[in-house]
Amino acid sequence: MIAKTPSPPYYAVIFTSLKFPESEGYHEMAERMAELAATQPGYLGYESARDEIGITVSYWENLDSIRNWKQNLEHLEAQRKGKENWYVQYKARICKVERDYGFELALATEKSRISK
Amino acid sequence: MIAKTPSPPYYAVIFTSLKFPESEGYHEMAERMAELAATQPGYLGYESARDEIGITVSYWENLDSIRNWKQNLEHLEAQRKGKENWYVQYKARICKVERDYGFELALATEKSRISK
Repeated sequence: MIAKTPSPPYYAVIFTSLKFPESEGYHEMAERMAELAATQPGYLGYESARDEIGITVSYWENLDSIRNWKQNLEHLEAQRKGKENWYVQYKARICKVERDYGFELALATEKSRISK
Repeated sequence: MIAKTPSPPYYAVIFTSLKFPESEGYHEMAERMAELAATQPGYLGYESARDEIGITVSYWENLDSIRNWKQNLEHLEAQRKGKENWYVQYKARICKVERDYGFELALATEKSRISK
């Protein structure tokens, strides 16, 4: 899903990765990390998609919350495994979100159906 | 592929979208926009992945290059079509990339194979 983030400014970590096609244990680890990230102080949201490459964006209140998450012990272990077993290449970019805008299709029809 | 961007600071537009499963013409338009973006002043790179949601990140030298791209006539037409035909929801976030780091598997074995 698209993350419901507050008004800017806030922070984003864009994690883009290329992994081996065979990567046993990767999916479980990725799910666990998404769950664990959501319990961290300053966490605002998470978006992820993968086809040829994977892009995961996590959103955070500030740089401290990003640093804390990077140093989380279980996350450090996942980072180690990632480099040893799964990733061919990755890049992490730490960004300040300065502005955002969006679009959402009017759900009037859907709502009126429900209310009947 | 993972974009080869210069040293920070630079800018990123994170475009996260949810579209209708049936979306005729979408793929061609997305490809054309990726090509066209690459010809714009200040363009630095592009990353895209889609499964349940789509995440496209484009990288730019500065905010002016992002503004110019947003106002490109062919891009404006694509934005209009996107809202009319393809997208259920989207969010665009304009970010300043402050720091990055990466990992790349050593390709020594591969290289030695090629040189033989």
